[in-house]
Amino acid sequence: MKAVGVVVEYNPFHNGHLFHLQQAKEQSGADIAIAVMSGNFLQRGEPALVSKWTRTNMALSAGVDLVFELPYRFATQHAETFAEGAVSILTAAGCNSLFFGSESGDLDAFDRTINFLEKNNEKFQEQIKFYTGEGFSYPKSIALSFQSLSPSETFIDISSPNNILGLHYIQAILRQNSKMRPGTITRKNAGYHDEHFSSATIASATSIRKALFGAPGEMDSIRQLVPGTTYEQLLRYKEVYGEFHSWENYWPLLKYKLLQSSPAEIREFYEVEEGLENRLLSAASEAGSFHHFMEAIKTKRYTWTRLQRVCLHILTNTKKAEMKNTQNTANYLRLLGATEKGRAYLNSEKKKLSLPLISKLSAFSDPDLQLDIRASKIFALGLTDAGQERLLAEEFSRPPIMLTGNE
Amino acid sequence: MKAVGVVVEYNPFHNGHLFHLQQAKEQSGADIAIAVMSGNFLQRGEPALVSKWTRTNMALSAGVDLVFELPYRFATQHAETFAEGAVSILTAAGCNSLFFGSESGDLDAFDRTINFLEKNNEKFQEQIKFYTGEGFSYPKSIALSFQSLSPSETFIDISSPNNILGLHYIQAILRQNSKMRPGTITRKNAGYHDEHFSSATIASATSIRKALFGAPGEMDSIRQLVPGTTYEQLLRYKEVYGEFHSWENYWPLLKYKLLQSSPAEIREFYEVEEGLENRLLSAASEAGSFHHFMEAIKTKRYTWTRLQRVCLHILTNTKKAEMKNTQNTANYLRLLGATEKGRAYLNSEKKKLSLPLISKLSAFSDPDLQLDIRASKIFALGLTDAGQERLLAEEFSRPPIMLTGNE
Repeated sequence: MKAVGVVVEYNPFHNGHLFHLQQAKEQSGADIAIAVMSGNFLQRGEPALVSKWTRTNMALSAGVDLVFELPYRFATQHAETFAEGAVSILTAAGCNSLFFGSESGDLDAFDRTINFLEKNNEKFQEQIKFYTGEGFSYPKSIALSFQSLSPSETFIDISSPNNILGLHYIQAILRQNSKMRPGTITRKNAGYHDEHFSSATIASATSIRKALFGAPGEMDSIRQLVPGTTYEQLLRYKEVYGEFHSWENYWPLLKYKLLQSSPAEIREFYEVEEGLENRLLSAASEAGSFHHFMEAIKTKRYTWTRLQRVCLHILTNTKKAEMKNTQNTANYLRLLGATEKGRAYLNSEKKKLSLPLISKLSAFSDPDLQLDIRASKIFALGLTDAGQERLLAEEFSRPPIMLTGNE
Repeated sequence: MKAVGVVVEYNPFHNGHLFHLQQAKEQSGADIAIAVMSGNFLQRGEPALVSKWTRTNMALSAGVDLVFELPYRFATQHAETFAEGAVSILTAAGCNSLFFGSESGDLDAFDRTINFLEKNNEKFQEQIKFYTGEGFSYPKSIALSFQSLSPSETFIDISSPNNILGLHYIQAILRQNSKMRPGTITRKNAGYHDEHFSSATIASATSIRKALFGAPGEMDSIRQLVPGTTYEQLLRYKEVYGEFHSWENYWPLLKYKLLQSSPAEIREFYEVEEGLENRLLSAASEAGSFHHFMEAIKTKRYTWTRLQRVCLHILTNTKKAEMKNTQNTANYLRLLGATEKGRAYLNSEKKKLSLPLISKLSAFSDPDLQLDIRASKIFALGLTDAGQERLLAEEFSRPPIMLTGNE
């Protein structure tokens, strides 16, 4: 059986994801689709709207056959580490190809860019150092450095976030000697039209989330932007767990965590650079919300995403010591859910999987898994009472989701 | 000027406290009364009903002339350490006597008991070891040991909490070579009657707190049990800060703190004995309230108070390393409030104070003070929004309360 891999957050699963998934299956000619999906916390350093279980349900209903969790250690990191973790999981799961969405959509342009960067690596790194030294954020410095080395149009636009991710997927495939063949699909934005997808039915996850946190009536406006199963799952989540997750739910906890810590303790958290601890501490005493807090600590030097990740690592008690000196690839395959086809694939390929397969938490012990469990507990604390208890219990007791029937 | 010292929590100030204060002044013949008062967290390991500032106001209005803060490092500890800290502050403040309430009321009986314990110390310690080894709590073991050594009625009843505190005050006075003369006043309980105080106007702080957390109408029932100024201050606190403080307010924070900690990290907290960490962790995942949590972790071995203190030290991030290797006496006198008479006393005795006097936080740096500031920040997090911001700001910006006029 041939498998195509995709790297996803599905926050939430929408029509753009559906388009990407269908294209990946079609272009790869694969029998099944495998997703490596971030757990409860995401790359931008924020909680997912709904739990990984609900997002797994959305994925399976929409045509993904196997969902593996991208551990916190990779899921909440900058593009390079994120990509290394994701590629290692899809490779271990036996995928023949990896299809990613990009602004460019041109695989040859990716290859040319990677070759160019390899040849000019020394100069490139020097330039990055120069720009970060000038106080620019790291992503901005990368874009400026690339621009200063070569304005040629035959390369990909390295300042586009999905191009950067794609670049790192390909580099990780090369570094890990993965046999996966990369492929890219142009992302569909507003303005795009074809038979099945149009700007009326495709919108960004950001705008969908905005609608979900808006006035009660606004929820209805996303109906045409997501598959029916996503819509149902969202309604159900709100009913069962009480609310969607956002950083504001965790603000009282983050504030407490900061106010009870000494500056030296804050410096121990992952990604906290020298000097940031005092900024964090003084803003925490005064800010009345997470948003105000972020605005108070924001500078040109740090991107919003970077600072959200810092906040997340503090919230989850993730320290430098815990994240350093670990290898760049995953230690296990944690199965979150499978369709019947997905289970058939696992049965036939079981012996070829190059990492241990986990479907019960109690059967396996690993530092990455411990961190995932801790992160899931804290994710649950963003809910109140009944929803919280239910979600806390689920992390430990629930087996992978098994979708049956004619999906 | 002659000063009498009292050791208090005033949670809240009630008629029993008023009786004790008036007796202390009368029996000592002092010109002014000085109280060393626990800050925002108390000896039973719980938050005070209202902030130390409001309780200082109550004290000054009722006849105390100077209020100094008993630092967290002493205020949240077992009787011996609590007493050492309190006695060191009253001594440094120049008190000539210390008057404490006790069940016994007989100073000679205290002296006889202390002498007896000194002479039989070795046997006494052996017995305590025996009983704690049998699984009894520490206070229970002390009472049983004393009983087994001597059933004589000429001693104080060492199982009564205020007798024990008194015993430790006297022992601390002896150990610290304090020139303070101890005195004791029999505590007034239900059933007591005299011209000014009766069981209709004296009730325990516990029953008063119960009424304050009861149905809205119940608040009225404490009117006759507290001075008018206490009643006003309580009403005002609820209006300005939104609510009274109880452990339940801090449960979401304690739960979060536990769930984001590893067992090894929990073992680092002060008073956490080997093995308790796993009990705490498993109960935290399941308990829906602080009360349920306490019931889940309670055993014969640990008193409720002891466990509340453990919880408090975890909540305030107070570690063994921070509490060990510190001296038994206070490092400073932090002034919380003064009457005009109190200020006159400070002016005249300034040079005789044997510890630095702090009235502005910014002017002094000390580990005990850092801990108090941290504890106050966390105390504020028990409130929501406006009340929280106000209380957080107060800890840093507010000078001592100066009562003027004819109090």
